[in-house]
Amino acid sequence: MSEVRRDIVTDTWVIIDPDNTDIPEIPHEKPEIVQSCPFDEGNESQTPPEIYAVRDSTSKPNGPGWKVRVVPNINPILRIEGELKKFGMGVYDMVTGIGANEVIIETPRHLENIFELPPEDIRLVLQTYRTRITDLHNDKRMRYILIFKNHGHLAGSSTIAHTHSDLIALPATPVRIKLKLKGTFEYYSYKERCLLCDIIQQEIEFGDRLVFQSDRFVVFTPYASRFPFEMLILPKNHSFSYKRITDEECNDLAYVLKKTFNSLDRTIGIPPYNLILNDSPNLLPRSDYWTTIEQDFHWHIEIIPRIYRTTGFELGTGFYINRLSPERAAALLRANL
Amino acid sequence: MSEVRRDIVTDTWVIIDPDNTDIPEIPHEKPEIVQSCPFDEGNESQTPPEIYAVRDSTSKPNGPGWKVRVVPNINPILRIEGELKKFGMGVYDMVTGIGANEVIIETPRHLENIFELPPEDIRLVLQTYRTRITDLHNDKRMRYILIFKNHGHLAGSSTIAHTHSDLIALPATPVRIKLKLKGTFEYYSYKERCLLCDIIQQEIEFGDRLVFQSDRFVVFTPYASRFPFEMLILPKNHSFSYKRITDEECNDLAYVLKKTFNSLDRTIGIPPYNLILNDSPNLLPRSDYWTTIEQDFHWHIEIIPRIYRTTGFELGTGFYINRLSPERAAALLRANL
Repeated sequence: MSEVRRDIVTDTWVIIDPDNTDIPEIPHEKPEIVQSCPFDEGNESQTPPEIYAVRDSTSKPNGPGWKVRVVPNINPILRIEGELKKFGMGVYDMVTGIGANEVIIETPRHLENIFELPPEDIRLVLQTYRTRITDLHNDKRMRYILIFKNHGHLAGSSTIAHTHSDLIALPATPVRIKLKLKGTFEYYSYKERCLLCDIIQQEIEFGDRLVFQSDRFVVFTPYASRFPFEMLILPKNHSFSYKRITDEECNDLAYVLKKTFNSLDRTIGIPPYNLILNDSPNLLPRSDYWTTIEQDFHWHIEIIPRIYRTTGFELGTGFYINRLSPERAAALLRANL
Repeated sequence: MSEVRRDIVTDTWVIIDPDNTDIPEIPHEKPEIVQSCPFDEGNESQTPPEIYAVRDSTSKPNGPGWKVRVVPNINPILRIEGELKKFGMGVYDMVTGIGANEVIIETPRHLENIFELPPEDIRLVLQTYRTRITDLHNDKRMRYILIFKNHGHLAGSSTIAHTHSDLIALPATPVRIKLKLKGTFEYYSYKERCLLCDIIQQEIEFGDRLVFQSDRFVVFTPYASRFPFEMLILPKNHSFSYKRITDEECNDLAYVLKKTFNSLDRTIGIPPYNLILNDSPNLLPRSDYWTTIEQDFHWHIEIIPRIYRTTGFELGTGFYINRLSPERAAALLRANL
């Protein structure tokens, strides 16, 4: 019989069939042949001027000689200029489209997968995430900074296959983050412990959903995985904000990401996927919920293979159906470490 | 400048570009050529035995002579037999996979679109929704009955193109429904008025998002539309439960659905879409929120064209980006009524 599992953090339910052993068909997309990629070294003039870059000390902005480069999105949906204003429209609410929309180009080489990079180069990308979040948090109009990756067409990727991350700074706290803040707050109020710290401890103890652990990070398939081979990566030491990640932790996380994606590649090939950094908001809405955020929130990375299409069921409910259990997915991933 | 609009019911935010006039590319899928369809009249033996049917008085169950036919899903994810049990797994929660998974075959003819049927036949489908919800509400293990349609591959449709609806009875109240119950409850607590009644009144008054209205129903594009040409259909008279729909309202709603889809077809051709009936839950979780549900909840139908792929942004936040404003979409739909 199938199990209906609750994600305690977001109150999302997932129907899982623990008896099924079939791996679903994995969509594999052919890379497009690109004549000239604006993200390649030497083509810097094809992007808007850079906001930030990790560069050789002898190189010049917007020229070659970089390792990681951050540029504004050429077709931004939000703009940095202007005043954050709130309007009422009868019963409705609106804020002006203030925000930021940046692209983090992860390597000067034309690679499609971040894990093809050596760990020391992945580390530079992770440090760049920290730099950009820290910088944008100075602007109090920005309520939430989301960093994410769309890999492949089915995961919503743009036409540029060159490996990159997207950053969007938002003028309102997203509902999914609010649900996570609420779930972790309520657990803390009751237990005076961090929910995600307790989950880490339990996953290491149970072991059946554990993919692997390093000195500082743990990787597992969540109990209520919405998608086959969904994974969570968390720092073992409690930390509510990615801004506080140390250089040593960036080193370790780079190694963990490379190992995770290599295992996924050996298990099912790299499918279309999204990677999402779940961080604390910049400005807390006035609410009793969030007075303990330093204690109760714990930043984490979600890796979500986009193997199933969502239907009216998921859209209408927030319920998911996942026919491959996280225990089987974790066993397959462990076998390919 | 773009606008960041809040859906007051679910606290979901949508970034909308009110200046864009380009209609996004609409995916159109070719129907598959099917040799033999299990949903056609005469092929009743190819489905599990029927649960319910609208039939000629002279016809026999599981034979020809029907207008609407309800059968169990041949590959159900939840099962009707067994006890609803709750388990704790350390910090996690689980309930047994009790529920129902039915298919409502909307016509004996091999048609792909419900709006090709005459209104009197669409009415029978809408009455069948009421019959099935009323029946399943007698079983208190079923917390929520979701009826929805997946039209087209990109909307998650199965391989059977013959027009049908899906019904899933769930053993837990879905998070999206909880958000809607919370949003409508909070508004009612403050105003002592139904939020959706106020929205209907405002949409009729403003008119710029109104698609059309009949005697008993109103159709408009929501202020915070997540997708281009998204539409909401609501009964004008306050009603918290679809079980209470009258035969006259079913007549009127059949006419409204046919007119709505005809207009969508003339505007952009029928895209892949989901239709979702948002109804009250069967059993209210113990909470102060929902003591006033008869006053504060208002059932409604969502029509969601699946024109954009969702990315890590939507998955990670519940925020959406919609480059076609609902005001423009409504104007185009009105021009094609």
